[in-house]
Amino acid sequence: MAQLVVMYKTPADPAAFDAHYFQTHVPIAKGIPGLKQYDVSTGPVTGPGGPSDVHLIATLHFDSLADIQAAFASAEGQAASADMANFAQAGAEMFILETRTV
Amino acid sequence: MAQLVVMYKTPADPAAFDAHYFQTHVPIAKGIPGLKQYDVSTGPVTGPGGPSDVHLIATLHFDSLADIQAAFASAEGQAASADMANFAQAGAEMFILETRTV
Repeated sequence: MAQLVVMYKTPADPAAFDAHYFQTHVPIAKGIPGLKQYDVSTGPVTGPGGPSDVHLIATLHFDSLADIQAAFASAEGQAASADMANFAQAGAEMFILETRTV
Repeated sequence: MAQLVVMYKTPADPAAFDAHYFQTHVPIAKGIPGLKQYDVSTGPVTGPGGPSDVHLIATLHFDSLADIQAAFASAEGQAASADMANFAQAGAEMFILETRTV
């Protein structure tokens, strides 16, 4: 399995972020070809000792790294990337990885 | 579901990190009570445009946030935390979150 993990920094207006994210961004991103599962954090993202600077973590699951590359190149992937300018002004970190269960 | 995500920064000696992580740390952490699944990245963790400063991402799955708190308090969790001093000198970020599939 392969994952695209997106960690969104806490925005100035979390309610506005959430409204855009769930009403607009998720429907766009769910159309990305090859997407197998799409998980989001619900409630606060904390560190072990208290608050973190991350508001939301999204994990998009694909079969392979090649599928993630194809997803970025797709029209739906391009639309999802472009949409980030509409709500992720506080910044986001993206990580791409293959995973296995130990 | 709830997750403990640990993102290890790239160490000075990745081979030594991996040897300790898989031979010593994983067996300790797998004993943590309440742990339902333990996934690790395999191969490089990249950003969308190239390398990242993250060497390995571990995702430990639990049923609830309460189970994660209990895991930290357990003897096995304490041992796993203490073992990080033996291989994670380059630093690690930890995030605790509940997740849902959208």
